[in-house]
Amino acid sequence: GLFNLLSMNGTGNLMDFLDEPFPDVSTYEDFHTIDWLREKSRDTDRHRKITTKSKESYWELIKSLLDAWSGWVVMLLIGMLTGTLAGVIDLAVDWMTDLKEGVCLSAFYYSHEQCCWTSNETTFDDRDKCPQWQKWAELMTGHSEGAGAYVLNYFLYVLWALLFSFLAVSLVRVFAPYACGSGIPEIKTILSGFIIRGYLGKWTLLIKTVTLVLAVSSGLSLGKEGPLVHVACCCGNLFCSLFSKYSKNEGKRREVLSAAAAAGVSVAFGAPIGGVLFSLEEVSYYFPLKTLWRSFFAALVAAFTLRAINPFGNSRLVLFYVEYHTPWYMAELVPFILLGVFGGLWGTLFIRGNIAWCRRRKTTLLGKYPVLEVIVITGITAVLAFPNPYTRRSTSELISELFNDCGALESSQLCDYVNNPNMSRPVDDIPDRPAGPGVYSALWQLALALIFKIVITIFTFGMKIPSGLFIPSMAVGAIAGRIVGIAVEQMAYHHHDWIIFKNWCRPGADCVTPGLYAMVGAAACLGGVTRMTVSLVVIMFELTGGLEYIVPLMAAAVTSKWVADAFGKEGIYESHIQLNGYPYLDVRDEFTHRTLATDVMRPRRSEPPLAVLTQDSTTVEDVETLIKDTDYNGFPVVVSRESERLIGFVQRRELTVAIKTARQKQDGVVSSSVVYFTEDNPQVAEACDPQPLKLRRILNLSPFTVTDHTPMETVVDIFRKLGLRQCLVTRSGRLLGIITKKDVLRHMAQMMNQDPESIMFN
Amino acid sequence: GLFNLLSMNGTGNLMDFLDEPFPDVSTYEDFHTIDWLREKSRDTDRHRKITTKSKESYWELIKSLLDAWSGWVVMLLIGMLTGTLAGVIDLAVDWMTDLKEGVCLSAFYYSHEQCCWTSNETTFDDRDKCPQWQKWAELMTGHSEGAGAYVLNYFLYVLWALLFSFLAVSLVRVFAPYACGSGIPEIKTILSGFIIRGYLGKWTLLIKTVTLVLAVSSGLSLGKEGPLVHVACCCGNLFCSLFSKYSKNEGKRREVLSAAAAAGVSVAFGAPIGGVLFSLEEVSYYFPLKTLWRSFFAALVAAFTLRAINPFGNSRLVLFYVEYHTPWYMAELVPFILLGVFGGLWGTLFIRGNIAWCRRRKTTLLGKYPVLEVIVITGITAVLAFPNPYTRRSTSELISELFNDCGALESSQLCDYVNNPNMSRPVDDIPDRPAGPGVYSALWQLALALIFKIVITIFTFGMKIPSGLFIPSMAVGAIAGRIVGIAVEQMAYHHHDWIIFKNWCRPGADCVTPGLYAMVGAAACLGGVTRMTVSLVVIMFELTGGLEYIVPLMAAAVTSKWVADAFGKEGIYESHIQLNGYPYLDVRDEFTHRTLATDVMRPRRSEPPLAVLTQDSTTVEDVETLIKDTDYNGFPVVVSRESERLIGFVQRRELTVAIKTARQKQDGVVSSSVVYFTEDNPQVAEACDPQPLKLRRILNLSPFTVTDHTPMETVVDIFRKLGLRQCLVTRSGRLLGIITKKDVLRHMAQMMNQDPESIMFN
Repeated sequence: GLFNLLSMNGTGNLMDFLDEPFPDVSTYEDFHTIDWLREKSRDTDRHRKITTKSKESYWELIKSLLDAWSGWVVMLLIGMLTGTLAGVIDLAVDWMTDLKEGVCLSAFYYSHEQCCWTSNETTFDDRDKCPQWQKWAELMTGHSEGAGAYVLNYFLYVLWALLFSFLAVSLVRVFAPYACGSGIPEIKTILSGFIIRGYLGKWTLLIKTVTLVLAVSSGLSLGKEGPLVHVACCCGNLFCSLFSKYSKNEGKRREVLSAAAAAGVSVAFGAPIGGVLFSLEEVSYYFPLKTLWRSFFAALVAAFTLRAINPFGNSRLVLFYVEYHTPWYMAELVPFILLGVFGGLWGTLFIRGNIAWCRRRKTTLLGKYPVLEVIVITGITAVLAFPNPYTRRSTSELISELFNDCGALESSQLCDYVNNPNMSRPVDDIPDRPAGPGVYSALWQLALALIFKIVITIFTFGMKIPSGLFIPSMAVGAIAGRIVGIAVEQMAYHHHDWIIFKNWCRPGADCVTPGLYAMVGAAACLGGVTRMTVSLVVIMFELTGGLEYIVPLMAAAVTSKWVADAFGKEGIYESHIQLNGYPYLDVRDEFTHRTLATDVMRPRRSEPPLAVLTQDSTTVEDVETLIKDTDYNGFPVVVSRESERLIGFVQRRELTVAIKTARQKQDGVVSSSVVYFTEDNPQVAEACDPQPLKLRRILNLSPFTVTDHTPMETVVDIFRKLGLRQCLVTRSGRLLGIITKKDVLRHMAQMMNQDPESIMFN
Repeated sequence: GLFNLLSMNGTGNLMDFLDEPFPDVSTYEDFHTIDWLREKSRDTDRHRKITTKSKESYWELIKSLLDAWSGWVVMLLIGMLTGTLAGVIDLAVDWMTDLKEGVCLSAFYYSHEQCCWTSNETTFDDRDKCPQWQKWAELMTGHSEGAGAYVLNYFLYVLWALLFSFLAVSLVRVFAPYACGSGIPEIKTILSGFIIRGYLGKWTLLIKTVTLVLAVSSGLSLGKEGPLVHVACCCGNLFCSLFSKYSKNEGKRREVLSAAAAAGVSVAFGAPIGGVLFSLEEVSYYFPLKTLWRSFFAALVAAFTLRAINPFGNSRLVLFYVEYHTPWYMAELVPFILLGVFGGLWGTLFIRGNIAWCRRRKTTLLGKYPVLEVIVITGITAVLAFPNPYTRRSTSELISELFNDCGALESSQLCDYVNNPNMSRPVDDIPDRPAGPGVYSALWQLALALIFKIVITIFTFGMKIPSGLFIPSMAVGAIAGRIVGIAVEQMAYHHHDWIIFKNWCRPGADCVTPGLYAMVGAAACLGGVTRMTVSLVVIMFELTGGLEYIVPLMAAAVTSKWVADAFGKEGIYESHIQLNGYPYLDVRDEFTHRTLATDVMRPRRSEPPLAVLTQDSTTVEDVETLIKDTDYNGFPVVVSRESERLIGFVQRRELTVAIKTARQKQDGVVSSSVVYFTEDNPQVAEACDPQPLKLRRILNLSPFTVTDHTPMETVVDIFRKLGLRQCLVTRSGRLLGIITKKDVLRHMAQMMNQDPESIMFN
């Protein structure tokens, strides 16, 4: 029954049938780390083969050209699909958000705005009232006013919200557990070379798209921006499978995914350049210049596809695009920097609170009832949100209104200023005016909305539904910013003679733009939570008209980052990566401790010696025993146990396959056969000896080595830059031990006094 | 005398006195490569020391905070100085360019535009005529018209041009030979880890700034954009010397220089984001995320400083900023792509022609007369440029006019369209009109200017004066683009019924914007020459009003890159790097050959064995002989000559110093003393034996090694990503040889069938 579903905890059996089968060619297992160097050299081999072949015939030449073009084709497809999905999501969210309040009688699939736009009976002053659009109470009881109608509307609003969120969480639980959350921490981890099978699968794509619409429409305090990046990466993964160049090479696949992430941000914020920089700064690990160019292409295609769909009917890509016309003044930097401080504090509060709550979810009974949790939070959100007009509507609309400058034609409560009756009314450039009663009541409602958003967002992010935090963070900052902006504006209006206003704000001038404060606040809060820098400023720059406003945005972003960094170095994504114990080697963490490779390598002094093979004295049986008894990814091969001089490294998987094949197909290979890794043919001493097994072809003759005296900072650098899985430690050619990526991560965690055992391994 | 100076060839004796002394702390010699790993670990050590000390006292804490802030301070200073210099250069160029034609009587330091702006007698229709501004002929003879005046003006124009360029080349020759050229190839090389002492020195900064003004004012076909990057990097280097954090660490210094390059492009094109991407894509080698953020800051500070100076009086940062108001149509992609093809062909022609000419300059007598060469080219340029109004003016003004849309108020010849007398005249959005006689004569003059610019630019770039190629390349593209644009516009006007125009260009509509074609052409030509991609499109995007025009720009840039790449993979900067034999390891060259480390390492089979030290059997005398007989940067240390097992690497410089110090200060160290690198104290067998010399402390115990079987593609990758100087080759711990960066470069050149001996070594 229902309760059974609510408390369901397994990964779902249905999914096992629906999930795509493991690709047979891949040599990495789930939750393992890839070897970037190896992937790269495999791609070079492939490329070399194609180049050689292309000289043989015209057909091969065409095939090689197609191969060279496939990268661009993939980018084009990703851009088109991402843009289309973003447009569809926007349209669907628009419609379903309005559905909570009422329905369009002329066409049920019209949103409130579309409904009244197409109506002939709409007047300009009453843009959002038209007979075709009916609230639920009006439709059901015929009365649109009164307490009864209000209660009925309230009840139906909450009911719709609960229905949407229940649908969302159920779909996620049953079909695609990976569709929950924002996905960015996992994508960062995947891009750094980790395998999470199914995380970017077709089912995740489908379910995440559908449930994202449901989750956003339910009115929960979450955004679609982060999950859109996940959706875009799923698209990227989908199109990778069309070309073996990408599907069979985990390194190349990640180049495509980096570009897809750029396309995702591009449509989320209508900022193609910001998207590319976001991918570069925030999510990508290996970002060659070729990828930069392709990401840019994908981001542009996505942006133009979305523009062609035109979901908001204003030929803008996002609801909160805005153009300001008045300049800002140096003195305003003080409130901007204060907003930066607020953003930093909010970031710290949010990260600490959210991580504490998520840890509680992981460790207590709470985690066993994800569906119930979503239902409860949705109920609380909807019940508290309905009475306040600023929380009832969708968060993007709220942000859009807060960013907006109050032009002469603006009719919202926030623009209820007392106009001078003698004043001629130009469309832009209205001088500062005293605030009317509407503005003051809006201020109270905004203050309440701010507290509500701050608290509820901490509990919302991380639930088992798709949930981004860009929009809620921006909303918090925009509310705070608008409040500060109005305060500064009114102070400047009423106290022109104060020394702080005297120099730049004369009576009758348009000095303060409260909308700009909202935008600066949004940037500050987003910066505090994510610690983005360049990409944040560029995204905000692309949302506004000009270069003019970069300085305020940058001042707020820098302040917010510094304040937040003072309380803890990690942004929300890094914190979640750590919470989940993903093996993520951050390129930004500087390792400054004085430890050496010898302090980190295995085996430690108390541990049994390293499991090694010798080049010419191990038998097949020994090898099989070693494989059975250990679960290492590979084994070093040494000259002999006495000298311990390293000659190479052999992969577990290849060794297993080679021995199995030899046992089946090669005559005379028995358990007592000796395995040879030497170059020369082994001399069989006597005829009765078993046939030797020569395995030099699977031996990697160039394993990566460092000496035991190598400082760990260099080792960390090498692991990061070359993307190694493991590295052997030698002294004068003698094998001493091995350092794997997990050893490096564990050591770094130890050095930072964190729980080293929380890292998800291999 | 003059001729003596003209043929002067030495580096100049004056310079020896003026050049800054070698910094004593640096351990790298001129024209040597730095070791990135070592610099990084030195910086970590320094950081560690400061952190430890900061806990001791408040004073140390403040010092550590100052140290942490110094990066931002340097960026602020770089931005401010770069912006100021760019503003000063713009103003000076403006004035001196006009000085070739005439002078302002009210104030001689006014340019033509400033002169007439400040005059009361200027009317709007005759904006550039005012009594205060007098041409030379008018001033000297009183006649402003007639053949005599024309000849006199012509003569003085050429004379001024010759004077400016003579001054420029003489200053460069005498004071700062490194001030010539664009500087970008050298900066790329320096950023990749090469030392060219004095290249970014104070004298170079001063002389390059002065001579840049002279060179641009002389009317030669060159631009100030590339050299501005060099100037910005000189500023960066200057401010590095204020902080030991940067001046004593070649790695950290290069982070600052990367940011300075971004600031340079930012002011050159008024494009801060484009500047950062240019630095990332085009010039930088090691670009950590921290540098991205700081570069952005420096670029913004520079842009706002320049805006505060406001050199063009229009609050824009560049002369050719433009905003278009009409959209483009899908069908126009065909001419845009054709312009891309043109850009690619121009790029190929320019690179081949210029490189051939520069090679001739290097190898023949031509190179002995740099001053004469500049004089001759200036003479030819001035004589040919004066008669054509499109080449007489400065190239930036030309580009600005070509980019511009013909509004209703435009009075230039290019906007001489036949207006419909019945038409009302809105400022923007004028429908297509038939071209008037002015447009047709402009077309002929532009065609001649195009041929002239194409030919003369090939000979100009690379002369011994500061010379950038951005502006000439853009001019070539803009001319071609405008011609194509006008052609398409007129075709569309006269043949509305043709099937290709039918769908998008109705009579009376404003379909074709010739200015946009000029911009697309400029992007294509710049892309063909430099092979920039993202940064090119972003710079162009920042020059125009909106996202709208990114697609045409991108189509042209991609086409141009592909066409040019088909003829040769290298852009002009890489070609010049190769021509000059700089040891630059390009991150973009993919090494796909099947060679192994053993094929590249020294010694080869026929060569004498590697110069090595043993850990406990080499005497001081042996070491001294080795140092005297060889010029290697360092020596591997092995256990013994028999086993050849590697234990470490010792730097030549440290070895020299250690032995010298020991000989002076340590009793009993004589020529026959044994040098010990072992950990344990050497046992002195007999009392009469000379005192041993223990040098383990200078031994690098973690030299970088690869095995002889390592594929060269991996070795190249390691050299690139870790910034190594050398790498030792071993097999099972036995030292086989050494691979240096020069060996890698030589091998790569060999594999590409180039002349491997042209690389400047170490």
